[in-house]
Amino acid sequence: MRTNYCGAINTRYLNETITLYGWVHRRRDHGGVIFIDLRDREGLVQTICDPDNIDAFQCAEKIRNEFVLKITGIVRRRPEGTINLTLFSGEVEVLVTTIEVLNTSLTPPFLMDDDNISEAIRLEYRYLDLRRPAMQANLRLRHKVSMAVRVFLDQNGFIDIETPMLTKSTPEGARDYLVPSRVNIGHFFALPQSPQLFKQLLMVSGFDRYYQITRCFRDEDLRADRQPEFTQIDIETSFLSQDEIMRLMEKMIRSLFTSVVSVDLPSPFPRLTYAEAIADYGSDKPDLRIPLKLIELTDVMKEVSFKVFREAAEKPDGRIAALRIPQGGKLSRKEIDDYTNFVAIYGAKGLAYIKVNTLAKGLEGLQSPILKFLSEDAVDTILTRTDAQDGDLIFFGADKAKIVNEALGALRVKIGHEHGYAESGWKPLWVVDFPMFERDEEENRWRALHHPFTSPADGHENMLESEPDKALSKAYDMVLNGSEIGGGSVRIHRKDIQSKVFQALNISNTEAQEKFSFLLEALQYGAPPHGGIAFGLDRILTMMTGAESIRDVIAFPKTQRAQCLLTHAPGTVNKQQLDELSIRLGKNKNTAA
Amino acid sequence: MRTNYCGAINTRYLNETITLYGWVHRRRDHGGVIFIDLRDREGLVQTICDPDNIDAFQCAEKIRNEFVLKITGIVRRRPEGTINLTLFSGEVEVLVTTIEVLNTSLTPPFLMDDDNISEAIRLEYRYLDLRRPAMQANLRLRHKVSMAVRVFLDQNGFIDIETPMLTKSTPEGARDYLVPSRVNIGHFFALPQSPQLFKQLLMVSGFDRYYQITRCFRDEDLRADRQPEFTQIDIETSFLSQDEIMRLMEKMIRSLFTSVVSVDLPSPFPRLTYAEAIADYGSDKPDLRIPLKLIELTDVMKEVSFKVFREAAEKPDGRIAALRIPQGGKLSRKEIDDYTNFVAIYGAKGLAYIKVNTLAKGLEGLQSPILKFLSEDAVDTILTRTDAQDGDLIFFGADKAKIVNEALGALRVKIGHEHGYAESGWKPLWVVDFPMFERDEEENRWRALHHPFTSPADGHENMLESEPDKALSKAYDMVLNGSEIGGGSVRIHRKDIQSKVFQALNISNTEAQEKFSFLLEALQYGAPPHGGIAFGLDRILTMMTGAESIRDVIAFPKTQRAQCLLTHAPGTVNKQQLDELSIRLGKNKNTAA
Repeated sequence: MRTNYCGAINTRYLNETITLYGWVHRRRDHGGVIFIDLRDREGLVQTICDPDNIDAFQCAEKIRNEFVLKITGIVRRRPEGTINLTLFSGEVEVLVTTIEVLNTSLTPPFLMDDDNISEAIRLEYRYLDLRRPAMQANLRLRHKVSMAVRVFLDQNGFIDIETPMLTKSTPEGARDYLVPSRVNIGHFFALPQSPQLFKQLLMVSGFDRYYQITRCFRDEDLRADRQPEFTQIDIETSFLSQDEIMRLMEKMIRSLFTSVVSVDLPSPFPRLTYAEAIADYGSDKPDLRIPLKLIELTDVMKEVSFKVFREAAEKPDGRIAALRIPQGGKLSRKEIDDYTNFVAIYGAKGLAYIKVNTLAKGLEGLQSPILKFLSEDAVDTILTRTDAQDGDLIFFGADKAKIVNEALGALRVKIGHEHGYAESGWKPLWVVDFPMFERDEEENRWRALHHPFTSPADGHENMLESEPDKALSKAYDMVLNGSEIGGGSVRIHRKDIQSKVFQALNISNTEAQEKFSFLLEALQYGAPPHGGIAFGLDRILTMMTGAESIRDVIAFPKTQRAQCLLTHAPGTVNKQQLDELSIRLGKNKNTAA
Repeated sequence: MRTNYCGAINTRYLNETITLYGWVHRRRDHGGVIFIDLRDREGLVQTICDPDNIDAFQCAEKIRNEFVLKITGIVRRRPEGTINLTLFSGEVEVLVTTIEVLNTSLTPPFLMDDDNISEAIRLEYRYLDLRRPAMQANLRLRHKVSMAVRVFLDQNGFIDIETPMLTKSTPEGARDYLVPSRVNIGHFFALPQSPQLFKQLLMVSGFDRYYQITRCFRDEDLRADRQPEFTQIDIETSFLSQDEIMRLMEKMIRSLFTSVVSVDLPSPFPRLTYAEAIADYGSDKPDLRIPLKLIELTDVMKEVSFKVFREAAEKPDGRIAALRIPQGGKLSRKEIDDYTNFVAIYGAKGLAYIKVNTLAKGLEGLQSPILKFLSEDAVDTILTRTDAQDGDLIFFGADKAKIVNEALGALRVKIGHEHGYAESGWKPLWVVDFPMFERDEEENRWRALHHPFTSPADGHENMLESEPDKALSKAYDMVLNGSEIGGGSVRIHRKDIQSKVFQALNISNTEAQEKFSFLLEALQYGAPPHGGIAFGLDRILTMMTGAESIRDVIAFPKTQRAQCLLTHAPGTVNKQQLDELSIRLGKNKNTAA
C-alpha cells in the first residue's frame, strides 16, 4: 500500500523503501536510464529506472504521460548538479524496484503544466484541467477556507442548520430557477436565491446563532464574475447590536486570513459611511489600496461661466468632482483619450482635465481644453481644493451625481492600478449607514437598497413614509480591495415596522400576504431582535487565489451561457418526463398559452 | 449585553448580576410575587419579580407566554424545598432588577412543552415547533454530527469539494427533479440524485480523497422515511482496497458515535456476505439486536408429502425456512393470527407453525395445524435442525425465496421487538459480496443491484456475460440496527469493464454515450482505481435521536405530499415566468403535446 505521497518525499526518507501511487507527469530516456516524474496531489518526485532492473525498465519503456502507476523503490540523494530546489522533493530521487501500471492513458489534449489552454478545452476536459497544480491548489484552498470558517463559527456557538433547496420564490428580486412539481401539477418550487427568510425564522425559533455554507441560485444573465449557482457563507444571530455583529464577523475574516494565508488584517476594520464612500471614492465598495480620492467641487461651481460645470452644479442630482493624479502630467494624449472612452461606458459625456505644468507661471503654466471657459478665480479654487502640484493632472466629472460617481470612481481604480498608485496587500473596510431605499427611475418607485427586511436606523422609523430618501438603514457591507465580499443588516423584528417598509416599497398587503405571510406571522410570536450577514465564498476565493475568473475556484462551473461543457447540461428530456409534469414546450414566447 | 445563557446558570454564579435574553416559558403569580421561567436555547431559569421593585413588577404583570425579554438580576439560591433537580439551573433563581420587553407575542397555538401536537400544526408553525426543546436538541445534534464528520475527514486528508446542483440526469434510476433553462430554451437541468459521477471524475483529477455533505434530490412517491431532498455524506477515495475503505469508514462512524453520543461501537464491525445475511436473516440489512435466525429447511423438504413444503423445496427459486421463537409457546391464537396477517403483506399465503409443548411426548407433545401432513421423520428433522426446546414455537415460510425471506425476515424483527428478544444498544455490521445484478422480472432484464459503476469482484469480470446471476461485486453496505446507513463500492476504473457492465445491463452504446460519454472518456485518461461510499445523514440522525420520523431531524421538511406547510411551496407562478422559459401548462397528461 502507499507509504508516502510523491510530493512529500525528501531527505528524511533517504534509503527507505517506499511505495507511491501517481500519474506520469513526464518520462524521458537519458543516458540509458529512464526518468519518470511521478505526480500526485502533493506534488512531483523524480523516479529512475535502471536497465539492470530489467522488468521495471521494460515496463518503463512502454509508459506514456498520464499513465497511473504504482511504484516501489528506494529513496536516494540526487547526484551533485541535478538537485532541483524548486521541488520539495528536489534533493532526492527514487530508484525504482517495481512498477505496476494501474491504468493507461490516451494522449491528453494538453500537458498538465501548460498554462495557456483555451477555457473551452479546459471546461470540456475538466477532469484533466483539475489535475493541473494551480487548480488543485485552488480547490484545496477552498476546502481550507470552508473548514476554517466552520471551526471559527462552531467555536463561537453557531449551529449549522440546513434550509430547503426546494422552496418558494424568495424576495431578492432576481429571477428564480423554477422546479415543476409532479405531485402538485401546475405548481413550482423555486431554488433559493438565499436562505434569508429561513434564517430569520430560525432566529424566531431561538437558535440564537445560525450558519450555513450553502448553494444559492439566480437565473440572471451572467457577467464575468457570476455563476447560476454560487456559494454563500450565511450567518444570522439574535440579540446582538449592529456593532457586535460587525465586530464578530470581522474577527472571523481576520482569523480566516491568518489561518489560511498567514495574512494579518487590520483590527478593527476601518469604517466609512455610505455617504463618505460615495463622496471620496464614488463607490460603495472602494478599493482602499488606491489612495486617490474624489474632490468635491459642486459647491464652488454654481457661479462659473462654463456651462457644463454650472449646469451640473445647479441640478439637485448633479455633481462636479475632481480627481487629481499626482505626477499625472506624464500621461500621453493617447492615454487621456482612452480614459475618455473608458468613462463614456458609465455615461460620462467627456473627460475634462487640467495639466499642471508649472504653478508658478499661473494660467500660463496650465494646459487644458477647458481653461478658456473658466475664470481665474475658478481655476484658483480648483487648484487650492485639489492641492495641485507641479506635474499633476486633474480630471473632472460634471453630470448627474450617479454618472460622476461611477465614472470617476472607476477611473480612479483603473488609473490607480495602471499607473502604480495602488498599494499591495489587503485593504478591508466596512461601509455602513446605507440609505433604506433607492429610486427606481424606470418603474418610478422606491426599491430596497439591501432587501425589504432590513431595519431602519434608530429614529429613522418615522421617516419611512415622510422622507424615504433620507431614511438610513442598519445595513453594512464588508468590502475588500474594491469588492463587496459580504453584506448584511440588522433585520426588522416587529410586524408594524415591516408593514411600513412594505408600504414604502409599494408592496401591497395582498402581495406581502401572499409572498411573506409566514414571516409576518412569525414576527407576531415573539421574534427576537436579530441580524446577520452573507459572504460570497466564491468571490473571497477568487481574491485569495488571485484567480482570473470565479470559474477557477469552482470545480465544475458553468459558462456564461449557463452551460456545463463537460456534461452538456442542460440537456433535452423525453416526452414521458414532461407528461408527468404536465408541461409542454412552446416553440417560442408567442406560442405560450 | 447578555452575560449568560438562561439554561447555563447555576450556583457558580451566586450573587452575580447577570443579563439574560430569552422567551417567557411560563409566568405565574404566587404569594404576591411573579415567577417567570425564562427560556433560551440552553434551557430554562426561574426569575422572580418582587413587588418592592415596582417598575419590574408592573412590567411583569403585563407579560405573557413567549414574550421576548431582556432581564437583569441577581443570582440567588432557591429556598429549601423549591429546588428542582431536573433543571441545570434548578438550585438557583434570578431576582429581577430590570425587565425590558423586546417583543410581544400572540398566544401561541401550542405550549412549548406540549409533546402531543398534530404534525400538520407543527409544520405550519414550524418556527414555534422548533422552539420546543426536543427539536432544538435534534438540530443541535445534527450540527454536532456534521461537524464531527468534517473534523474526522479533514484530519484524514479528505478535501471538501462542492459539485453542481444544476446538472444532468444522473443514473440512479429514480425520477429527476427538472429545472427548465431560460438561456437554452427547451433544455433542462436535473437536480442531482447524488454526486456519483462528479466524485468519480474528481478521483480521475487526482484529488485522492474527496468528501461533501450535500443535498440530493429524488422525485419519488414518498414513503414515511423519505424526503424529496435529503442529505448525504458523500465520500470517494483513490488507490484504497475495498477492505481499506471499509476500515476507514467504520473508524469514522465509531469516532462519530464516541464523540457525539459517547457510545463505543465494536471494532471491527462484523461482516456478513449478502448470501449469509439472506440465509440467516432473510434481509440484506439485518437487525442484529435480535438474535433469532432463519433456519434452512429447503434441502430436507424435497421428499415430504406435505405439498406446500415439497413444491416450494422443488422450485429453483423456492425456499423453506423456519423461525424458532424460544418460549414462543406462550403466544396466543390471536397473536399468531395477527402475525399471519402481517406476513401476508409480503405475499406469504399463510404462516404454518408448530408449538413444542413437551418434546418427551413425541408427536403428542406438539401442537400444529400442519402436523397431520408431515411424516414423523420430517418432524424429527425440523426439531433437530431448529434445536427446539419445550415451550418453543416454530414458524415456517415456504414459497418463492423472495417471499420467504421478506416475510420471515420482517416477522423475525417484529416478534423480536414485540416480545423482548431484542438487545439494547447499537449493532452495526457490514454486508459484502453483493451480486452485481438482480433480475427485473417485469422488464425482463438485469438491473444493477448498486449502480452501473460498481466494480465486479476480482475474477468475476468474465462472468458478466456468461453468468450474470452469479457475478459478485465489490459493493458494501453499512447496516445499523436493521437500517442501511451507508452504501458504497469500489468503482470500475477501466473502460472495457465499464462497457461490459453496460452491455450486461442492456444499456446500448448510444445510450451510454449520450448519458455518460464524459465518464467513459475520463476512464481513458488515466483513471485511478477508486471507490467510496455515501451515508444517509438524515437516517443516521433519526436513529441517533430516536426520532419517530425523519421530519424531526430536518429543520424545514416536506410532507408526504411533497409540500411545505409553512411556506406553501410549491406555489403558482405567473405567466411571464413561464413565457420566459417558453413552457406551457397542460390541463392534464392528455393535452401534453
